[in-house]
Amino acid sequence: MVAVIKQGTTEKQLGELVAWLEDMGLTAHICKGQQQTIVGLIGDTSRVDAELLESLSIVDSVKRISEKFKSANRKFHPDDTVVRVGSVAIGGGNFAVIAGPCSVESPEQISGIAEAVKAAGATLLRGGAFKPRTSPYDFQGLRAQGIELLLHAKEKTGMPIVTEIMDASHLPLFENVDVIQVGARNMQNFELLKELGMIRKPILLKRGLANTLSELLMSAEYIMAGGNEQVILCERGIRTFETYTRNTLDISAVPMLKELSHLPVVVDPSHATGMSRLVRPMALAAAAAGADGLMIEVHNNPQQALCDGAQSLTPAEFADVMKSVTKVREAIRS
Amino acid sequence: MVAVIKQGTTEKQLGELVAWLEDMGLTAHICKGQQQTIVGLIGDTSRVDAELLESLSIVDSVKRISEKFKSANRKFHPDDTVVRVGSVAIGGGNFAVIAGPCSVESPEQISGIAEAVKAAGATLLRGGAFKPRTSPYDFQGLRAQGIELLLHAKEKTGMPIVTEIMDASHLPLFENVDVIQVGARNMQNFELLKELGMIRKPILLKRGLANTLSELLMSAEYIMAGGNEQVILCERGIRTFETYTRNTLDISAVPMLKELSHLPVVVDPSHATGMSRLVRPMALAAAAAGADGLMIEVHNNPQQALCDGAQSLTPAEFADVMKSVTKVREAIRS
Amino acid sequence: MVAVIKQGTTEKQLGELVAWLEDMGLTAHICKGQQQTIVGLIGDTSRVDAELLESLSIVDSVKRISEKFKSANRKFHPDDTVVRVGSVAIGGGNFAVIAGPCSVESPEQISGIAEAVKAAGATLLRGGAFKPRTSPYDFQGLRAQGIELLLHAKEKTGMPIVTEIMDASHLPLFENVDVIQVGARNMQNFELLKELGMIRKPILLKRGLANTLSELLMSAEYIMAGGNEQVILCERGIRTFETYTRNTLDISAVPMLKELSHLPVVVDPSHATGMSRLVRPMALAAAAAGADGLMIEVHNNPQQALCDGAQSLTPAEFADVMKSVTKVREAIRS
Amino acid sequence: MVAVIKQGTTEKQLGELVAWLEDMGLTAHICKGQQQTIVGLIGDTSRVDAELLESLSIVDSVKRISEKFKSANRKFHPDDTVVRVGSVAIGGGNFAVIAGPCSVESPEQISGIAEAVKAAGATLLRGGAFKPRTSPYDFQGLRAQGIELLLHAKEKTGMPIVTEIMDASHLPLFENVDVIQVGARNMQNFELLKELGMIRKPILLKRGLANTLSELLMSAEYIMAGGNEQVILCERGIRTFETYTRNTLDISAVPMLKELSHLPVVVDPSHATGMSRLVRPMALAAAAAGADGLMIEVHNNPQQALCDGAQSLTPAEFADVMKSVTKVREAIRS
Repeated sequence: MVAVIKQGTTEKQLGELVAWLEDMGLTAHICKGQQQTIVGLIGDTSRVDAELLESLSIVDSVKRISEKFKSANRKFHPDDTVVRVGSVAIGGGNFAVIAGPCSVESPEQISGIAEAVKAAGATLLRGGAFKPRTSPYDFQGLRAQGIELLLHAKEKTGMPIVTEIMDASHLPLFENVDVIQVGARNMQNFELLKELGMIRKPILLKRGLANTLSELLMSAEYIMAGGNEQVILCERGIRTFETYTRNTLDISAVPMLKELSHLPVVVDPSHATGMSRLVRPMALAAAAAGADGLMIEVHNNPQQALCDGAQSLTPAEFADVMKSVTKVREAIRS
Repeated sequence: MVAVIKQGTTEKQLGELVAWLEDMGLTAHICKGQQQTIVGLIGDTSRVDAELLESLSIVDSVKRISEKFKSANRKFHPDDTVVRVGSVAIGGGNFAVIAGPCSVESPEQISGIAEAVKAAGATLLRGGAFKPRTSPYDFQGLRAQGIELLLHAKEKTGMPIVTEIMDASHLPLFENVDVIQVGARNMQNFELLKELGMIRKPILLKRGLANTLSELLMSAEYIMAGGNEQVILCERGIRTFETYTRNTLDISAVPMLKELSHLPVVVDPSHATGMSRLVRPMALAAAAAGADGLMIEVHNNPQQALCDGAQSLTPAEFADVMKSVTKVREAIRS
Repeated sequence: MVAVIKQGTTEKQLGELVAWLEDMGLTAHICKGQQQTIVGLIGDTSRVDAELLESLSIVDSVKRISEKFKSANRKFHPDDTVVRVGSVAIGGGNFAVIAGPCSVESPEQISGIAEAVKAAGATLLRGGAFKPRTSPYDFQGLRAQGIELLLHAKEKTGMPIVTEIMDASHLPLFENVDVIQVGARNMQNFELLKELGMIRKPILLKRGLANTLSELLMSAEYIMAGGNEQVILCERGIRTFETYTRNTLDISAVPMLKELSHLPVVVDPSHATGMSRLVRPMALAAAAAGADGLMIEVHNNPQQALCDGAQSLTPAEFADVMKSVTKVREAIRS
Repeated sequence: MVAVIKQGTTEKQLGELVAWLEDMGLTAHICKGQQQTIVGLIGDTSRVDAELLESLSIVDSVKRISEKFKSANRKFHPDDTVVRVGSVAIGGGNFAVIAGPCSVESPEQISGIAEAVKAAGATLLRGGAFKPRTSPYDFQGLRAQGIELLLHAKEKTGMPIVTEIMDASHLPLFENVDVIQVGARNMQNFELLKELGMIRKPILLKRGLANTLSELLMSAEYIMAGGNEQVILCERGIRTFETYTRNTLDISAVPMLKELSHLPVVVDPSHATGMSRLVRPMALAAAAAGADGLMIEVHNNPQQALCDGAQSLTPAEFADVMKSVTKVREAIRS
């Protein structure tokens, strides 16, 4: 961390600042120039509040040089984290495919899709029970009943299940859910993240629509600071000015996150593009860029899905994508 | 709402679509061209799920022509809503000034500031008890204790208080809070919004960092759909590529929101700019553009605030801004 | 400028770096920590290529502490620049109002509007002769003939004229134009900027749709580096996710630019919002925030303008806005 | 195209509007509802100025349903365009690799790199002679001399060359250049695009930093409207809020552009990410998503490049990426 000191600062003021910083366990190096004085701070600066420092009357600006995330930071944990869900492993070379419908609708629907995606190679079953919708008048999911249907499909197929939580008060309903998903709009719902840090269950954390990778990692840090280190990061498209695609899938987030952090990174091409015909090329691109897994919407009858049908693959299309994904993964390893 | 039909759609398919739409109480008008067929939908389209319609195999695209928000829509409520908080009115020509520190720190601090801002003309006292911070290592507010200190200051000064909620489970603590604030990062925390729709207390709803006005109004709609019609909209800056200012205050949101909706609109120049020296020009700009109120951070000792000190005014600076705001409001009325 | 040095850098390598930097006339201060070494550079760093420095194998990252713009920088020119166009002054307390139609259409149209806006208090006449349009099939302006019509209106009314240039090869046509405008899409047309640096005529430089204030000032620097110091900066709205307004007018750019630079700053509320009914509140907001002038579209028959009619005021509406602008300017000065 | 008519419009006004639209060769279908009347326009609406239509007093809003680009539109040219440069073909299944240094520096440098990238499989040589730089104080390229050095390297290796133009007045220097590049910042330099429409040479058109795919295709349309149909589209990263990567490479632009247009699409992972270590994963992702080619920066001594060195591969790294790209292309075809 570097603090630029205002012109006109007295030696006494500078001395007081340095003393205060050293009290926090930091070492301060002073570089004096004719127009500027720079104070370089060495030590654990992740706990320094940059805005507070910047608000001091003698400080012109503060620039962070090292990242604020610690538990999620690869610098302090060079080895890949492998998240384990029953017999399924994610990260550290283990590729996970999470597939299923946008919304859970009926026992037949969810079980039928579960069997189809399992046969095609999916390792986890996803399905929305609680659905965040922009409008209060849109379908909000089957909620508690949807989770029951997912658990029933899990029992029948043996697949671990992934589903989204929208409020910490719903946690009791998630007792037998294997992976809890935090949606893009809740990525900075800090109270929810804190609660999820208290449990011992993998969390799939989706990047917010306009959030940076640093903010995504700070949200992972909220969960990890509570002691829950089983976090899976998910790139699902960011908001840009483009309108043909619903969002813009940031594939470069995959290698960048894997450099910054040891956590596994999966990609959701379905929500990102909003169009089923773009799922295949973007799933292949994500695999080629080194993703640890994919999250893909599959519906047995895309034209009748209650929501997001336009972005769902049929089971046959999904099976076809899976074959190509496997080939691309072989190509990049060889 | 207009649906563009794909080429190759049969008369039978089109007939089924029209029948389905008419079942929802809509009237469908068909415009047939050589290359395209357009179906115009007339009626209450706010309850039609555009994504579902777009996912049908014969539909190419759907364009909404009327807005999806109803309760918040000025078309159906031409008169301004006036939100009343004790003897204070907001909207319909009543200008409200909400002032106070970013964080509540101590009884002396909050009471001292309350008295100072009241003397300068503020009508409501703000102060953060629960603080959303990007990093789990930053100060998170005094929480329950902070609300107690606010209530104490309210008792001493008679000023109604405004403070932020971060989770619906904290609602019991807000029983004596006058206006509950929903922060930018929770603007699409739909479960929280639903809970706030169930109570009968004014809600100050801040626009999210990358959210559109339509999304802000849909979030207001979540609250209003529950029966709580006392919603105050707050523009607090949006995320743009600019880095000199923390966010970009969208002043045009003021006249635009007031055209679209009957709800009062206040502006927070402190968070938007992140710099105390920009608060004055932006407060004046907001007043000139027709805002119904301002939300301004004031601290008795900006250099020692635990957070966001860089954006706080001193009480003397605040009093000075208030005088100019009054003059600008007179100028635009005359 | 601060360079963070990679771990594992030898003393010899560090010494070579320092020698190279000192060759450029800079002083390098070294702050060594256990995990990081920081080199603080003092001196004229505006001519250091940060990307080149960052590409060196021993450099981890580079952070600029002082701005790269020099001629446009208020630090080196504390006094306001006053741009003079005939008897009209812009900046340093002189408020300029540039008004006229989006496109020049006919002698009657441009002269008629010129007289009307002059009577209402406009000091410069604007009108588009060369029109940048997204589509090659849209009206591209009367081009050379449009400039002739503007010059004719100038002769009749005595008003100096402002019009946009789209290519340096058109410069001969601009010989008698008083102020040359560079449009948002050409803000980083560096070859054009260099040519405009070679002439001695005021340049009105519009901010690009997705450009930062720093980039705007660097583009001003291109012009000023050639010796032409008569640059007027213009905020005209930036691209954001909002769709109700065409662009988002960044009013905070006004006080921010005036702090960073000594150049005058004018605001164009017509293009920013794209709606004539938002011109009034945004013009007042710009005046309240301290702008040095306004650029407003006025058309005698907005419903028949060849382009951008939706955002034009009638002369009567313009006269009304002018009265209120004058009152707001008085309010903020008193 | 659909026009929404304001309430209160008389039959006579509506009749006049319809007559005016039919004069333009369009067919107008009227859908009347209680609250709204919609006019559906069928025919060639690419030449209708939507803003003009929207500015009419009786029109509330206008929504385009079909795209405005015609020559670039796949609907009217279902087959892939194959751009031919000497014996090199781009598009229609032909994969092109354009490689070379950011800036041409010396005869040895450019010839050395040319031979190295040719040996590794590159089919076209790139090199910057005119360099757009944000700062007037940064290195601006060797300009005319740089083009001479490129032509010399072309002669020695037989590779066609690609280099950027910054102003139409430089066209004579580009007589023997094989492919002329239009950079991101000039994507909407409409006068330049018109000039390039007049010549008969392939144009590589880069997407602007904050431009949509529709705007990119409209800029291609400017070139094609002049009769030059040899346009190669290039995705090179867009500006987002992310700061770890220089830009965000929009890989979904590849399948989306190929659906919308028949023009070949290449991807530049070097400029997009600004980091050489991200070039490999992003090149593989682009190939997996179906790109028609890649544009990659290669430098024989990345640490001494005059610009953008941080994003250049060494020839050995480039050869390695090429091998993997070939494997990924095989994987997605099989």
